[in-house]
Amino acid sequence: MAEFDLIDLVRARTGALAAARGDVALGIGDDAALLRVPPGHELVVTADTLNAGVHFPRDAAPADIGWKALAVNLSDLASMGARPAWCTLSLSLPEADPAWLRAFVDGFAELASLHSVALVGGDTTRGPLSIAVTAMGLVETGAALRRDRARVGDDVWVTGTLGDAAAALVLGGHMPAPDGRVPTVAADVTAALHSRLARPTPRVEAGRRLLGLARACVDVSDGLLADLGHICTRSTVGAEIDIAQLPASPALAAAFEPSARHALQASGGDDYELCFTADPALRDHVAAALELAGVEASRVGRIVAGSGVRALDAHGGQWQPPRSGYVHFG
Amino acid sequence: MAEFDLIDLVRARTGALAAARGDVALGIGDDAALLRVPPGHELVVTADTLNAGVHFPRDAAPADIGWKALAVNLSDLASMGARPAWCTLSLSLPEADPAWLRAFVDGFAELASLHSVALVGGDTTRGPLSIAVTAMGLVETGAALRRDRARVGDDVWVTGTLGDAAAALVLGGHMPAPDGRVPTVAADVTAALHSRLARPTPRVEAGRRLLGLARACVDVSDGLLADLGHICTRSTVGAEIDIAQLPASPALAAAFEPSARHALQASGGDDYELCFTADPALRDHVAAALELAGVEASRVGRIVAGSGVRALDAHGGQWQPPRSGYVHFG
Repeated sequence: MAEFDLIDLVRARTGALAAARGDVALGIGDDAALLRVPPGHELVVTADTLNAGVHFPRDAAPADIGWKALAVNLSDLASMGARPAWCTLSLSLPEADPAWLRAFVDGFAELASLHSVALVGGDTTRGPLSIAVTAMGLVETGAALRRDRARVGDDVWVTGTLGDAAAALVLGGHMPAPDGRVPTVAADVTAALHSRLARPTPRVEAGRRLLGLARACVDVSDGLLADLGHICTRSTVGAEIDIAQLPASPALAAAFEPSARHALQASGGDDYELCFTADPALRDHVAAALELAGVEASRVGRIVAGSGVRALDAHGGQWQPPRSGYVHFG
Repeated sequence: MAEFDLIDLVRARTGALAAARGDVALGIGDDAALLRVPPGHELVVTADTLNAGVHFPRDAAPADIGWKALAVNLSDLASMGARPAWCTLSLSLPEADPAWLRAFVDGFAELASLHSVALVGGDTTRGPLSIAVTAMGLVETGAALRRDRARVGDDVWVTGTLGDAAAALVLGGHMPAPDGRVPTVAADVTAALHSRLARPTPRVEAGRRLLGLARACVDVSDGLLADLGHICTRSTVGAEIDIAQLPASPALAAAFEPSARHALQASGGDDYELCFTADPALRDHVAAALELAGVEASRVGRIVAGSGVRALDAHGGQWQPPRSGYVHFG
């Protein structure tokens, strides 16, 4: 399997994208790509790797793996308020399996097409399944959403719903249930939860609409409490989260009792929603912006003086997860 | 081993670089980095992965692996005439070995420092040893050296010397000898050859000085004949190489008879020299430019009409490698 097999395959599938982007002066086929950053913009760069058995189950569908490898990177760009532009892909594969590769590329290219992301470089090597992506985007100079801009008094918001991906891992036997009990659920509920795990939606449009409205922003990959903790650390503030306010999908609400559900929402991870802070004076504007972006908006807490994240129950007391030792998959 | 162990280690070792670069608006520590491309420049992007047992021997020194993982990427930037600027690093490691990791970072940071390259993102995952780097550089808009610009009548040049890295692989038992005979050589000769394999020098300064002088350019990673073949394919031309003119280091000349040496120089690979074409009217300028860059310049052939690369012996006949079936390591 030569280096160029995969890259040619992806190029055939997404080459029109690179050609359509006026900012790709030279794409795949030389020692490096030549790209044009428009005046008044900063380049936004992130790199995330997915390994089989760590970041996705070994039996995951190849098209889903391709989608997710790009999605987790676009989610990082979304959390900065950036417009995705280009990416590189380094794929390590145990064996040359044309059907697997085609399906992988289909999933990768499907998401790339949705966001007009051009693949501009990469390579294929023989080895255990691993996908390293570096994604590049553009944002207006000085406007990016960062982790270090939260202020005491800000609202804390999340997009969409939380906990679905973790619920799918529990139902699939890949992660212990928060309360030790794996519920029996209808097939359509399982399918709905699984699709959130397999094909997360990077909130690119939401991130763009939050420029100038949100103060600090992070994407929720390790679990809300952990990722909000990153905002707190970088902004030198604390936060309070009202666990009962965390948004749940109908599927999650149907599958799990509140106690287990809250744990999945608070710290399950793999959500790829945005968690951001904003001035309370801008509540209506934030809600309108996210409605335009086609995504739910939920106010779930507030930024306070101090440090760390406190999770509060419906009575304002310290929230207690159903059992201790709850550990995020991976 | 958390994602941030390695990245923090590299940041501690190279953070001053990122801070010193005025174009890193936001470095490691957020969801993505924010970088500034100066007006009048294109962004140059390349991605290359090194896997243990494929791209380097499993017993290679960790500092050398760190150096080489960055070097092969900077070599791609050099071949475009770009100035290296930033990179991302995705490291997969079988186990957390602090001493190994420190040495790896030392080698990586040593080369990064030489070229003021700032690490701006990446992650560490558990798995078989693999290092995926995406390197980004800058070049004046429209000035980049490309593979598709060679013209019939151009001289073909190479920088430095060829064949040393392949010779080291042969002496180390990692690659068969071209003529089946592994010579016995002095320890200092072995060391000189090994250092070319373990710590290749990306020809960044040479690439910069060749802007406006060279027509087409490629870096020599798969072997001169193969890489010059890429120029021929992309430029729709052919090339002739005078095998006896290929530059050899004193160590290579001391270790191998001419017949085996020529094979190592022509197709051994892993050289990370530049192969470029230029108008014969510019010979003196090319020689002067490479002298300023501190690297040898050798004219080794010419671009001709047609397709493919012909290797010629000292009498102008078809060069015959010492045995057929010679295969590049990896």
